Amino acid sequence: MREIHLQRVAPAEIEARSMEIIASELGERDIPAPQLAVVKRCIHTSADFDYADNLVFSPHAVERGVEALRKGCTIVTDTQMARAGINKRVLEGFGGRVVCFMSDPDVAAEARERGETRATVSMERAAGLEGPVVLALGNAPTALVRACQLMEEGRLRPELVIGVPVGFVNVVESKELLLSMGGEHIVARGRKGGSNIAAAICNALLYLASGDRRE
Amino acid sequence: MREIHLQRVAPAEIEARSMEIIASELGERDIPAPQLAVVKRCIHTSADFDYADNLVFSPHAVERGVEALRKGCTIVTDTQMARAGINKRVLEGFGGRVVCFMSDPDVAAEARERGETRATVSMERAAGLEGPVVLALGNAPTALVRACQLMEEGRLRPELVIGVPVGFVNVVESKELLLSMGGEHIVARGRKGGSNIAAAICNALLYLASGDRRE
Repeated sequence: MREIHLQRVAPAEIEARSMEIIASELGERDIPAPQLAVVKRCIHTSADFDYADNLVFSPHAVERGVEALRKGCTIVTDTQMARAGINKRVLEGFGGRVVCFMSDPDVAAEARERGETRATVSMERAAGLEGPVVLALGNAPTALVRACQLMEEGRLRPELVIGVPVGFVNVVESKELLLSMGGEHIVARGRKGGSNIAAAICNALLYLASGDRRE
Repeated sequence: MREIHLQRVAPAEIEARSMEIIASELGERDIPAPQLAVVKRCIHTSADFDYADNLVFSPHAVERGVEALRKGCTIVTDTQMARAGINKRVLEGFGGRVVCFMSDPDVAAEARERGETRATVSMERAAGLEGPVVLALGNAPTALVRACQLMEEGRLRPELVIGVPVGFVNVVESKELLLSMGGEHIVARGRKGGSNIAAAICNALLYLASGDRRE
């Protein structure tokens, strides 16, 4: 086994040290503080500095997301991975919860019958939820497109839409659709995004909401 | 709502169409077929073409991973996110399973007591498993370093190590350590990686193992 030189960093300090490195490499970019916390956490989860350039925030997106989380909202994800990555301890501390309808057998059955994606049907389930909702969509452009349609029809009124599907087919278009609408949103413009990015954005907002000293 | 022009692609065809786009943009790169399936699936989950350059495969990594999965091995992840992202239907079809020790209360307690990360202690738990094991580490360099030590000591003998932690503190070093060892590995060299990448690599191997026509 080769000798390697590891930095001596205590477990509790690893994240803080990572955030310092990210901040230092971001340099003098002009990103306002609350948005910066979101940008840094996306870079932390991906080591991809493209997120310093591709994230687009509506004017009150972070503030509105933080308020919703403090009220104990329901986060709806479009993958079990994003659901798994969200910090449930902090979320449940506010009385919130995270749900994902993608694996529900009735959603799969209805999607098959209608020739739609499960993601499309999932958003219709989200429209039936009581109380404040934050959508965190990191995978399926069809979820985001259906969410936009439901919002347009007034059937879905999320506090915030985190629109970060990843990929190559209708992904860019679905995000441009969300950007063209009036509501509060955080979007990773272009092809990039993912379940890890959706979870990272939720966690950044959760830490802001809880006054956690992590950025 | 702005008019957008979506490509008309049936739900079942979205993934295949995405893979065609990825293949076309990869162009004439000289990546052998089984490795290419892994590379393409990492790009599919991240929209990040860096994975065409940073993935390093030991000579029999894909073959050995596929064999292990067909035998019904245990995949050990270092996050619940990676665990959530692995296709359990296919894995369980081979009699395999995926475990993650990170949230186990006794792992957290022992880590606290010893001043180690939970990831370090998790790898010691992995060393106690019966039967063939594949490690899929997409988050914690401390997990990968401990795994390498246990392998060196002969206490852990994974069929394959998927070493794709992401980040800024000891991440690059942990992967170089794995690369310096003899075993079969798939590594995302550099800072990039993540739970999504760990899951994507497992899924690529699962689809190869099952002869799924998805690449």
